[in-house]
Amino acid sequence: MRTADNILRTEAPVILEMHAAAARRRASGRALLHFGQAVPDLSPPEEALAALRAALDDDALHAYSVDPGLAELRQAVADDYGQRWGVSLDPEREIIITAGANHAFFQALLAVVNPGESVLVPTPYYFNHAMALQMLGIRRRDWPMMVSGDRFALDLGRLDDGLAVDTAAIVCVNPNNPTGAVFTPPEVQALVMRCAEGGQVLLYDEVYGRLCFGAESPLHPFLVPGGRESAVVVGSFSKMFGITGWRVGYLIAPASLCEQVLKIQDTTLICAPVAGQFLARECLRSGEVRLAEYRRTLARRADRLAELLADVPELEWRVPGGALFALVAYAPEVPSRRLALDLLAQEDVVTVPGAGFGPAGEGHLRISFGFADEPELAELVRRLRRFLRNYRIR
Amino acid sequence: MRTADNILRTEAPVILEMHAAAARRRASGRALLHFGQAVPDLSPPEEALAALRAALDDDALHAYSVDPGLAELRQAVADDYGQRWGVSLDPEREIIITAGANHAFFQALLAVVNPGESVLVPTPYYFNHAMALQMLGIRRRDWPMMVSGDRFALDLGRLDDGLAVDTAAIVCVNPNNPTGAVFTPPEVQALVMRCAEGGQVLLYDEVYGRLCFGAESPLHPFLVPGGRESAVVVGSFSKMFGITGWRVGYLIAPASLCEQVLKIQDTTLICAPVAGQFLARECLRSGEVRLAEYRRTLARRADRLAELLADVPELEWRVPGGALFALVAYAPEVPSRRLALDLLAQEDVVTVPGAGFGPAGEGHLRISFGFADEPELAELVRRLRRFLRNYRIR
Repeated sequence: MRTADNILRTEAPVILEMHAAAARRRASGRALLHFGQAVPDLSPPEEALAALRAALDDDALHAYSVDPGLAELRQAVADDYGQRWGVSLDPEREIIITAGANHAFFQALLAVVNPGESVLVPTPYYFNHAMALQMLGIRRRDWPMMVSGDRFALDLGRLDDGLAVDTAAIVCVNPNNPTGAVFTPPEVQALVMRCAEGGQVLLYDEVYGRLCFGAESPLHPFLVPGGRESAVVVGSFSKMFGITGWRVGYLIAPASLCEQVLKIQDTTLICAPVAGQFLARECLRSGEVRLAEYRRTLARRADRLAELLADVPELEWRVPGGALFALVAYAPEVPSRRLALDLLAQEDVVTVPGAGFGPAGEGHLRISFGFADEPELAELVRRLRRFLRNYRIR
Repeated sequence: MRTADNILRTEAPVILEMHAAAARRRASGRALLHFGQAVPDLSPPEEALAALRAALDDDALHAYSVDPGLAELRQAVADDYGQRWGVSLDPEREIIITAGANHAFFQALLAVVNPGESVLVPTPYYFNHAMALQMLGIRRRDWPMMVSGDRFALDLGRLDDGLAVDTAAIVCVNPNNPTGAVFTPPEVQALVMRCAEGGQVLLYDEVYGRLCFGAESPLHPFLVPGGRESAVVVGSFSKMFGITGWRVGYLIAPASLCEQVLKIQDTTLICAPVAGQFLARECLRSGEVRLAEYRRTLARRADRLAELLADVPELEWRVPGGALFALVAYAPEVPSRRLALDLLAQEDVVTVPGAGFGPAGEGHLRISFGFADEPELAELVRRLRRFLRNYRIR
């Protein structure tokens, strides 16, 4: 059957490659250790599930909501922004509830960028963002991150080099996927100011925004002068409440853009899944305590992993400031896909090869610790040490 | 904020215009009669809801499924196709569960058609299809339906005139939205054969496929020689089980295309909402009896509406063979948006103006009876008669 060129050209998501390889390994009878997909080991709060069970009696839960989403959930997002950032959002005109943050990002991109124009993407990138660009015929301009000490950081000195006349937007995922870096207030500020000045849109993905390990959150772009007019923010309730399967996220943008995005929302989805919207709203009510606990758990895991990996000379730790993973550099001169597959074959450990996040990810493995308790981390490192000590390409 | 040209050019969905007008009217204290949006007055079977309630205890329901969807639901779709059509589908490679049929159609279009190419669309069209074309920079070639007796039909004699060298696909919604027409086996056969011969893809939307009033279903394109290789089928569980809010549909295509569509699925959604997938699977198990009843109810409503409208000389009935609505022609020489807004303002009746389905819909109103019992239909016709008898543009 005929297939569109942009789709043929779109790279396959690295996660699916690793899923397939893991499934083959599992089918041969092996138990695997999972450090691949970025999923949290959270489940929704019992109070939220109880409310959902009761609400299933109401026919309204089974019918379409309005396109932008349940008014209660939009109001809850606005309230949350008010409390955390002191930012006042109009829930009627500036917030759209989507089927997850990927759906929100795709809509934002389609709404803002013309085919043939370019978008500046810090690399390594989140692969679904690169795929969205490819399938919509938008050119990606790569802006390699730098390593500052033991952390990934934006290379602000090269920001202007990255921009071209046709650059319509700049992407920023903060906390970052795949590096786990949390970009600092000066970094966020520089991005917003550059966009405000040049007329680019800042596509700001805060999917992991509630999972920052430090006491401080990153600066929100809306707090920088010009940010409200320049940034489209996408986010999700998935990772913070353990409801990845419910597909509920959001998009925040100026009212005039939201009006345009609603055309896309109606055409691609109509409305976000309503029961999931209800559940997200209940999670915002009762999930904060658990979220704070989970954030501390993740910080502890990251610290523990750093300690343990200090004993593996072939690996170089990159400190994550948030999110569920770290992108670790390795010494062997071998493509990361190869290394990840060999690690799976020899040690039954699932990771994500850095090359799946673009050329700048090469030489790294992404290790997700969202789902791994401390004994599993110790086992992971034991296997990594054994694997790398004797590693030879076969 | 900068906005992409294709999005600015995309028409707003007519349903949202009418929603907004209806909301203003309601806010002024009026109770409205709803014949606008195509929603069924079904709720999910109690057995299915009970199964869902129990399943909420299982963390698997809250986490991502694999991208193509729950294996049990894909198997159920394959089983259903086997039983109803004698068609054998590979649930592993030929079925993808989507966030509703709009999402499936959008993915199919993006996967199959290059920007700048054209797609042949019978008109009046389903507005979200036209919008999908516009936002992806695909040209629409209109192929006006004809009226044969008192029914809408495809004008097969003009099929070849409609095709151009760059026509990549032909759309067919059967039963049709907005006309309610059920295209006959020769019509479906002609479309498939034309596509198989010319290399176009038939984008076949069977959202209302289980809501045919007659004993017979339309011919399925997969039963026509070449159909399996030429058609992408999209559908939904929303309308047949009353679960529009859960956002679960499907896409069926050759394995090679499904592999490409999964890139889009991963990028735009990751996976369909998992609890909704679970519910759809349970509905397929226990919802058939209710569905058969509902189909009879709809047929009775359509007959009743035909009888009642025979007394309104300004209206010309178009017999629907399925779905939830009819597209009725009216005599006054006035744009349908104007007529629909006046009908709302004067009689508190919500319909959808035909012009929202493209120029070929002008001079018609779409009347949905998915949610209207017989007394409401009588009241509708009473008001229509009064409204049209004295209608003057003010």
